[in-house]
Parts: sequence; structure tokens; C-alpha cells
Amino acid sequence: MPTLVLIRHGQSAWNLENRFTGWWDVDLTEKGVAEAKAAGELVAARGLDFDRCFTSYQTRAIKTLNIALEAMGRLWLPVDKHWRLNERHYGGLTGLDKAETAAKHGDAQVRIWRRSFDTPPPVMDSASPFDLSNDRRYAGIQVPATESLKDTIARVLPYWEAEIAPALRGGERVLISAHGNSLRALVKHLSHIPDSEITELEIPTGQPIVYELDEALAAKDRYYLSER
Amino acid sequence: MPTLVLIRHGQSAWNLENRFTGWWDVDLTEKGVAEAKAAGELVAARGLDFDRCFTSYQTRAIKTLNIALEAMGRLWLPVDKHWRLNERHYGGLTGLDKAETAAKHGDAQVRIWRRSFDTPPPVMDSASPFDLSNDRRYAGIQVPATESLKDTIARVLPYWEAEIAPALRGGERVLISAHGNSLRALVKHLSHIPDSEITELEIPTGQPIVYELDEALAAKDRYYLSER
Repeated sequence: MPTLVLIRHGQSAWNLENRFTGWWDVDLTEKGVAEAKAAGELVAARGLDFDRCFTSYQTRAIKTLNIALEAMGRLWLPVDKHWRLNERHYGGLTGLDKAETAAKHGDAQVRIWRRSFDTPPPVMDSASPFDLSNDRRYAGIQVPATESLKDTIARVLPYWEAEIAPALRGGERVLISAHGNSLRALVKHLSHIPDSEITELEIPTGQPIVYELDEALAAKDRYYLSER
Repeated sequence: MPTLVLIRHGQSAWNLENRFTGWWDVDLTEKGVAEAKAAGELVAARGLDFDRCFTSYQTRAIKTLNIALEAMGRLWLPVDKHWRLNERHYGGLTGLDKAETAAKHGDAQVRIWRRSFDTPPPVMDSASPFDLSNDRRYAGIQVPATESLKDTIARVLPYWEAEIAPALRGGERVLISAHGNSLRALVKHLSHIPDSEITELEIPTGQPIVYELDEALAAKDRYYLSER
């Protein structure tokens, strides 16, 4: 039976400061490092094991994976990194804290941007200090100027179909370390969550989510490992 | 011009205790972590950059790479891990410190095993606590029972030819984090060092070695980055 475990990266500096982060490359806090280690220890204690790992191009997810793998004695596992697993791009909100955003745009508008399925935030100004169009890690990639959750899902799922699902079908046990919204994309897809509900689904940091899948990769069960 | 940088992992617990380590999976010391970070900082400060990384299946080399990449802001680079870049397998000497080995086998014999090009140490007993034949990371691989440096070179070079050299020929800048003897294999090959001299070549921990290669991957220059 194919096994899939999802981990959202541990707490980042901007999770703590309550800033919109998106594609900006923010490090883990000490708490985030501890969360990643605890996640790896929990996975190992429950006897879960893996053959292949996937993560994004972002430091907080890669470090979470590396720290968890070290805690599992599995640093040697193959790891594929891809920008399609990156966090949702928050456009012009990137770098703003929640209070700044509310002061600038009003609470009601902010709620729409955060909770709407298909309304993206305003685009990022190309003069923004958070613009990553020229970052060499994204050479050859059209860096989004903003993304709705729908946009995020639309670029995550092709990677799922092309790389992750075939690994699972081939019998590999898969661990994915990624972000709140790239993981929402996968959970929506696997658990058939409607557009109207997915934005309310909170994925906590550093909590391994286990999917038991059937051979067609339909979800038979989904649970937090800490609750079993 | 193809760029190749080699880093031997930072100090490990058994480097410090002066034990034969080989394939046994020993962690970095605090000094080893600091060496890895300093290596990454030096590489970044000199403006060296990479497209692809290679390392072994062993924690000390993988962690050295991860720590160096983090210091370079390059955690997102692709990393290929392979057992062929592992340290030389020290057979029955694995786990012994230098004094124990000398007491058991005599100084002259130890010097032969350490410095001979083609005399392997005694084979590892299958009851050895350091036997890794059943470690799942080596599933499907014939774990050696011992290796001479010649044996090590014979299993490193096919990986160089199959994976690393093609990446360099394709224009990728390559960073390799590996071990004293797997790196000796590469230096011997690239710098045409005779059998009789290669065992005397010491490769210090955490010191980036830069190769400037021509298009045919012949070495035009080799130097420690810290000395330029």
C-alpha cells in the first residue's frame, strides 16, 4: 500500500512575526528547528520509513526535511527539490505584517485575499525588495507576480502527476516537506475537498500528516501521526 | 571552463578519536560543523557558484554539504548521493583506534595497510558490530568486506565517468563533498598522481580544493581555495 507523509515546514521567522512570506526565503526559528527534529523523531518512533523525498526550492522546507531526515537516520535518502512545491506567492502583500496589511487595505479585503479560493492579492511591484525574478534559483522559470490558492494548485498538481504519483505507484514510500498552501493543493486533490472549504483547512507546522492510499492513489485514510 | 570543487567532510567523532571509520556512519563534531560552515562561507566569499552537487551515502559528508550549501544560500541546488563516493572500507580495522590496531597487529603492518596502494586490511567479520551488509541504505549493493585504496578508486571512477564528468562536460559547475579516500581517487585521476605517491597525499578536512579543468576535463590547475 503506497505510503505518503506530508510535513509543513517548522515555524519560520516570518510565521513568528506574522508577515506574508510566500516565495521570500525566510529561515526557520529555533522553535521551527525543534519542530522539524520532533517530526523526524516521531516518524522514526512509529516505524515509518521512506524511499524518496520531495521538497520545494525554499530554505525553510529544505531544512525541515534535512533535520527530520537526520533525526530518522535517513539523510542518505534521495531528495528532489522543485519550485512547484513552493509556498503560494503573496504578490504585493509579501513582507507586510498582518497589521500593516489591514491598515493599508482594510480587514475585509485582507480576509478576501487570505480566504478566497481564486482572488489573488495585488501583484508584486517589480521594484519590490522581495522581487525574486532575477534570483538565479528561478532562472528559466516565470516567477509569479501573485497567486491565488487556485493558481498555486494549478502549478503544484502537474508536479504531483509527473513526479510524485509515479513514485508512489512504483511502490516508493514518499515524504514531502513543503508549505501551507502547496500542501493544501495536495490535500485538496487527494481528499476531494471543495473549493469553498480548502481555504479554511489549517495545516499546522511540523506535524506529519499520513495518507494511506490505495493502489489507484485514492485516499483511504488521512491523519496526524501525533494523534494515532 | 568547467569548475569542480572538492570538499572533504569536516572533523568527525572518529577523526577526533583516531579510529578507523570507513563505511561506519559517524557524525560530525562541533568542530566539523564549524569547518563545513567556514568552507561554504569561503566559497561564497570568493564568488564560486555551482549547478549540481554530489556526495556519498554517509552522514558526515551529507551534513558537510548541507551546512556548506546553507552558508552559500544554495540549499536549493540539486544533490545526488551515491555509495560509490563513500569512504574506503577499512574492513576488520573499522572501529579500532590507532593504538588498538598497533597493539593487535604491530606498527609495521598498520603502516602497510594505511599506506599501501593495493593491500587491503583484513576482511570485516560478519559478526562485527560495524557490519553494514544488512543496512537498508545498501540494499542491492555488495557491501565490501574490506578495500585497498586501489579497490576504492575502482568503484569511485565509474561514478565519476557516468555522472560527474558528463555534468561538467555539459557546462555544470560541480561541488563534491566526500571522504579522504574517495577524494584521493578523484585527485589521482585528475592530477595523474602515481600509485606510489597517492597514499601520501593528505586531504585536509573542510578545505575546498578547486580544480580548473579544460574542456576535455584535463586539470589545468588545482589549489586550496584558502591559499588563493
